[in-house]
Amino acid sequence: MAALRFQALPGFRDFTPRECAVRNYLFETWRSVARKYGFVEYDTPVLEDTALYLKKSGGELSSQLFRFEDQGGRDVCLRPEVTASLARLAAQHQRDFPKPLKWFEIGQCFRYEKPQKGRGREFYQFNVDILGEAGPAADAELIALAIDTMRAFGFRKGDFVVRVSDRQAWLDFAAQRQVAEERIPEFLQIIDKLEREKPEVTAEKLATFGIEASEVTSFIAHPENASSAYEAIRADLAARDLADFIDLDLSIVRGLAYYTGVVFEVFDSKKSMRAVAGGGRYDTLVTTLSEGNVDLPATGFAMGDYVIRNLIEETTDPRMQLETHLLRQGAACEVYLVLADDAKRPEALGVLSDLRQAGISCDLPFGSVKIGKQFQNAEKAGARFALVVGSEFPELTLKVLASRTEEKCHFLGLADWLRDRLQEPDGPLLA
Amino acid sequence: MAALRFQALPGFRDFTPRECAVRNYLFETWRSVARKYGFVEYDTPVLEDTALYLKKSGGELSSQLFRFEDQGGRDVCLRPEVTASLARLAAQHQRDFPKPLKWFEIGQCFRYEKPQKGRGREFYQFNVDILGEAGPAADAELIALAIDTMRAFGFRKGDFVVRVSDRQAWLDFAAQRQVAEERIPEFLQIIDKLEREKPEVTAEKLATFGIEASEVTSFIAHPENASSAYEAIRADLAARDLADFIDLDLSIVRGLAYYTGVVFEVFDSKKSMRAVAGGGRYDTLVTTLSEGNVDLPATGFAMGDYVIRNLIEETTDPRMQLETHLLRQGAACEVYLVLADDAKRPEALGVLSDLRQAGISCDLPFGSVKIGKQFQNAEKAGARFALVVGSEFPELTLKVLASRTEEKCHFLGLADWLRDRLQEPDGPLLA
Repeated sequence: MAALRFQALPGFRDFTPRECAVRNYLFETWRSVARKYGFVEYDTPVLEDTALYLKKSGGELSSQLFRFEDQGGRDVCLRPEVTASLARLAAQHQRDFPKPLKWFEIGQCFRYEKPQKGRGREFYQFNVDILGEAGPAADAELIALAIDTMRAFGFRKGDFVVRVSDRQAWLDFAAQRQVAEERIPEFLQIIDKLEREKPEVTAEKLATFGIEASEVTSFIAHPENASSAYEAIRADLAARDLADFIDLDLSIVRGLAYYTGVVFEVFDSKKSMRAVAGGGRYDTLVTTLSEGNVDLPATGFAMGDYVIRNLIEETTDPRMQLETHLLRQGAACEVYLVLADDAKRPEALGVLSDLRQAGISCDLPFGSVKIGKQFQNAEKAGARFALVVGSEFPELTLKVLASRTEEKCHFLGLADWLRDRLQEPDGPLLA
Repeated sequence: MAALRFQALPGFRDFTPRECAVRNYLFETWRSVARKYGFVEYDTPVLEDTALYLKKSGGELSSQLFRFEDQGGRDVCLRPEVTASLARLAAQHQRDFPKPLKWFEIGQCFRYEKPQKGRGREFYQFNVDILGEAGPAADAELIALAIDTMRAFGFRKGDFVVRVSDRQAWLDFAAQRQVAEERIPEFLQIIDKLEREKPEVTAEKLATFGIEASEVTSFIAHPENASSAYEAIRADLAARDLADFIDLDLSIVRGLAYYTGVVFEVFDSKKSMRAVAGGGRYDTLVTTLSEGNVDLPATGFAMGDYVIRNLIEETTDPRMQLETHLLRQGAACEVYLVLADDAKRPEALGVLSDLRQAGISCDLPFGSVKIGKQFQNAEKAGARFALVVGSEFPELTLKVLASRTEEKCHFLGLADWLRDRLQEPDGPLLA
């Protein structure tokens, strides 16, 4: 076949049924953990006023925007992340809700980057935020949620670690070294890039601040430089029996400009990939974006769908858990109706309708199909039972596809009977 | 408070938690009906090559596109609907799947229109398609699914009707009147606008084809002009006991250029709103978009989230069903931990952690909060139980918020005990 002219844009994904099932597994897991933690779901538009994101993120994301002028002459962009939209939404509606807000969102974001493994031009993000609570208990709650999200995917102690830091420690450091207010973002960028940058480049950049690289290395190496917030978080997580999942790591400051306090990142233990999740405190963002109208301290984190999926596929237990889920949930239907006598199509349609009405997922071939082929289709659909409708209707034959056993049943009371059968474990049916 | 500078773009919606819960209710209902019918979920990118949509939809949607040049110089647009993307995806991957494909998708679409009631610049669409089956049984399956979707929302016979038609009948009509091939889309547009256009304008337009308005009216009035496909569909639906939900209505041809056969629309019985859903057969679209490489007859329909939501809110039973769902699902948590003694926070965190680990949704205030206020928060969160952790720990007190009764319980075995309690109906707990 010739190459098809139309393809998905580079960096954009088509979700075939299997891919979509994997995506939905991520979404369902995210949602279920967030709900256990008492978070409620919200969402914001994928298209926003560009100024909202320029104002928030500083220069970093602005070069990666899908940005354009809409038909009304507005400067708009596809959201590169959602925190600015959340801050906008919270500023507008916070009076309608008791504080703190515990909100989560699962949404698609867009960045014009070079597509590569673990990174596309669109991706989904699980965003979890607490607004209206300034204390470290909120940060601990988020870190606990991040840990439990990893555990819900089947990861265990030793598979991953949460590296926790505090920008405040670096702001104190910078103040002591008399770093000028306006150069602080630049300074934090240097710390952020420490692990990826060549030491001589880092040293050169630090020199422009009159700071020696060894001062920075030594600061990171001394846990007593951690803030009191870190201690409170550690104690909170210890009470939840989760302290073993975190490590203090002052080399973490996070890239984005708006973080103001505790920050953290989740890594696979081998650190073979980019961070699985990351976040932190942004106590001034709502104030900035509302131009001083609303003051709402906030903290949050995000987990993208690319890295977590790769990590799941490269780790035995989480991968098995996903595969089991796909086997169970990926079936197109539970019961496949095999039409053994074309003259009985109206009766088969009646059966189909009754079973679906009773909440049973089932299917029937559209046209005249050979019986053997129908059984093959039943297998391909992942159905558990084939229900044969033939000339003996209202008598029917139920075949268990896994065990290839069969038994007779009757149209009367069929839906209830079949629902009970579907509750039973696989294997030969009881007589 | 001064007006906030940043707002959602006109025609774009913020989903606050309640709005998001309503949206998710639509999604869950759509998903559950589609799965009962043996459809599997897929998704395609919201951003596509503009040519894909220009090639498919003809001029109609092209004036409403969010269209721009991306950083790589590509002419791209936010999808105005999803069928072209589906056709692209199916052409690419159809060999990997047994036919027919029964696929559904829930996705956001974008059209630059004047925002008004029942119409925004973004909306969600439930798209259900069958590819690889040319017979009317596939159309009947889709119409049945549309009917069952309405019933799943709580609508009943008499609340809505599916108006079914067949473009083929009009193509035959046009052929008899010697309408030139290239003017057929124009002719179909006139039929499509019949009910909205002034009769004299319609008459004038038809005159350019040498056709009298009365010929058209008379054609519509005669059910014997329906195609044989319609009869087959009616018989199929009758076997499912669903024939009462459909009406033949030859005035329906649907706006988009690519429909080739049976078309249908779902309306509220009062016809007070735009169509709730609509679709039809598009047997040549996959061939066109794959430039002849793949031949896949197809039929499908879409239901947007705006009209169905308005209709739900204006119809008593569906509205009550939604409200009940929101009450049940909208709670932020099931169990709210009330901390009666701040010194017991570590113990309360341990309880919190245990309960969440057991799958129970629960919450605990972050800081020191007066007891009365904590109970208020429990009510606001929609919790069913307040679990009081105080100085008598590991003894605890469980309060049933609805009945204001209470009983003692113990930290040992708490999660299992509480899970059982949550299974019981509301009201005073058993002693």
